[in-house]
Amino acid sequence: MKIGGKHYNTIRVVDDGWSVEIIDQTKLPHKFELVRLTGVEEAARAIRSMQVRGAPLIGVTAAYGVCLALRDDPSDRALDSAIEILSRQRPTAVNLRWALREMNDALRGIAPPERVQTAYRRARELWTLDIETNRKIGEQGLRLIKEHAARKNGEAVNILTHCNAGWLACVDWGTATSPVYRAHDQGIDVHVWVDETRPRNQGAALTAFELGAHGVPHTIIADNTGGHLMQNGMVDVCFVGTDRTAANGDVANKIGTYLKALAAEDNGVPFYVALPYSTIDWSLESGFDIPIEERSQDELLKIDGRLADGSVVTVDIAAPGSGAANYAFDITPARLVTGLVTERGICEASSEGLKSLYPESEKSSAFALSH
Amino acid sequence: MKIGGKHYNTIRVVDDGWSVEIIDQTKLPHKFELVRLTGVEEAARAIRSMQVRGAPLIGVTAAYGVCLALRDDPSDRALDSAIEILSRQRPTAVNLRWALREMNDALRGIAPPERVQTAYRRARELWTLDIETNRKIGEQGLRLIKEHAARKNGEAVNILTHCNAGWLACVDWGTATSPVYRAHDQGIDVHVWVDETRPRNQGAALTAFELGAHGVPHTIIADNTGGHLMQNGMVDVCFVGTDRTAANGDVANKIGTYLKALAAEDNGVPFYVALPYSTIDWSLESGFDIPIEERSQDELLKIDGRLADGSVVTVDIAAPGSGAANYAFDITPARLVTGLVTERGICEASSEGLKSLYPESEKSSAFALSH
Repeated sequence: MKIGGKHYNTIRVVDDGWSVEIIDQTKLPHKFELVRLTGVEEAARAIRSMQVRGAPLIGVTAAYGVCLALRDDPSDRALDSAIEILSRQRPTAVNLRWALREMNDALRGIAPPERVQTAYRRARELWTLDIETNRKIGEQGLRLIKEHAARKNGEAVNILTHCNAGWLACVDWGTATSPVYRAHDQGIDVHVWVDETRPRNQGAALTAFELGAHGVPHTIIADNTGGHLMQNGMVDVCFVGTDRTAANGDVANKIGTYLKALAAEDNGVPFYVALPYSTIDWSLESGFDIPIEERSQDELLKIDGRLADGSVVTVDIAAPGSGAANYAFDITPARLVTGLVTERGICEASSEGLKSLYPESEKSSAFALSH
Repeated sequence: MKIGGKHYNTIRVVDDGWSVEIIDQTKLPHKFELVRLTGVEEAARAIRSMQVRGAPLIGVTAAYGVCLALRDDPSDRALDSAIEILSRQRPTAVNLRWALREMNDALRGIAPPERVQTAYRRARELWTLDIETNRKIGEQGLRLIKEHAARKNGEAVNILTHCNAGWLACVDWGTATSPVYRAHDQGIDVHVWVDETRPRNQGAALTAFELGAHGVPHTIIADNTGGHLMQNGMVDVCFVGTDRTAANGDVANKIGTYLKALAAEDNGVPFYVALPYSTIDWSLESGFDIPIEERSQDELLKIDGRLADGSVVTVDIAAPGSGAANYAFDITPARLVTGLVTERGICEASSEGLKSLYPESEKSSAFALSH
């Protein structure tokens, strides 16, 4: 999508043909900085430190991480090592392991001298696939927004989203935001309630940034606010993403998603989860088997902000001496999800629903990675 | 309660016998500063700017605001003006108007020359009443904590609270925290999950501060986290406060309370609201008639924090150019409340429950202020 009228992707191979450029998302919204990755350790660090984040983008970054590793050493041992290093950077998002499995499948049978070329080709395919998949998610979700728009008689359709399942979480388009961008680009009047998304503020920092940069009307709200808005008829529909979807339709998404799903159910507001098939973990029968990442308490106790002179500083915001717990995701049970919006269509959040869109899943689960 | 081993109240008349000292809560947790109020305008500003906040403390501050006004001018006109100015500083908390009504009732029939003395005496009575009422709330709630402790076999009872319904919101003890302090002081092992409470962070800044200063084990969490904790059996009971309680048991409390009540219901966790009778608005049949205060978007877009050198700065944290909406309260319907914990006992959150504890309410509603 666009920043200052110029089209960007979150990750790309630069003109040298091998090094990888990312947007450093830890600097947003205060600074827009591009960073060059030149080795697998840098790619791993970019994932761990959340310079890149969002399940789809993590997967594509890991794929390019493998490319960078093989450029240094195309041996089996180096391939194994790269996959091992990259896969353990984030525990919850399944795309990371999905992308690494795709790379492994493409590379394992190739003679080492040809691996680098094959790796870059496969990574580029995953990159392209991500854009195309999210574009299709947008097409599917657009139908839902159009239904709401038809009922609103020209008033804006109010959409609530949590965290950043936007184009900054993907290569382009986003998952939850893809329908929003398509609606906006077609002249449908949309307005997005952007959950701030503590503790890392991906909503206020990233979703607000990307919606603003593309010109989509939006309002930041505290994570506490969505229930009140829904009680008062101020939300027409919720769209969120997912970091991992269990085979029964349960979803693991940014901590707090579950609370919004409860409020949506309590107020009759449709609650949709947008996802590419690569977030589905066919090996898990329940979302409650998904490991929930715990992160540093400093993400809650400190925050980066801009001083009046534009410089960025880190400040302590909580009571001195108090500790914090920082669980990064929660599980929204399928019963609270109105529908799953995928690149193949919209289905019920259930085993039957997912199988109706992915009949091949019966087979593919046999190949699922162990957790 | 104690700070650094010394007992404090949030508000007191100082040794000169007339001026009023408060803790400037906008400076917490970064600085502990006492501020002296010497006129009604200063008292009004302290309420509006949230140097004092919390329904009970707002009421007592308003009472002393009347004292300060009458000291300058004891006329009827000055009394009317003081009540008018003070009552419009915060729209949601009913204690503010309750306390002003108490002052009006005590003063209206008194000859102006004797009003100052009567005002200080009545304000002192309200001050004492607040301490005593909250002490009794603690006694009632302590029974609930003891029941949980008996089932935990020596493990800590995990209590979740939202915002600050602590002693900093009252003259002493707090409402939601009063049972916690009593349990802790009796050697019962308690641990408090402290909701950060965006956007003003009263949890991370005030509740964590006061629990830490008194030595109660606690952990700060993002507001998004409570649902995950409850799904995983990590919360035994919730205690929150209320800024206004409708006659049917609906409660208006800090924005986000409703979301925690939904999660508690979904996971079978008891959800108690602690309140003094002065927060009950007998004139309202439903919580949804309570006006919800909207505050400045800057409370969400900016934050105060400590730099490494200890100095306190204000930083911008959100995407530049994005706006925010800041609703301060939401309504938790009575159906989600396990019980109301009051100074007279614990009752069902319903009209019948409240009437069982306050049989005189049928009469008093005739005297309710109009809204």
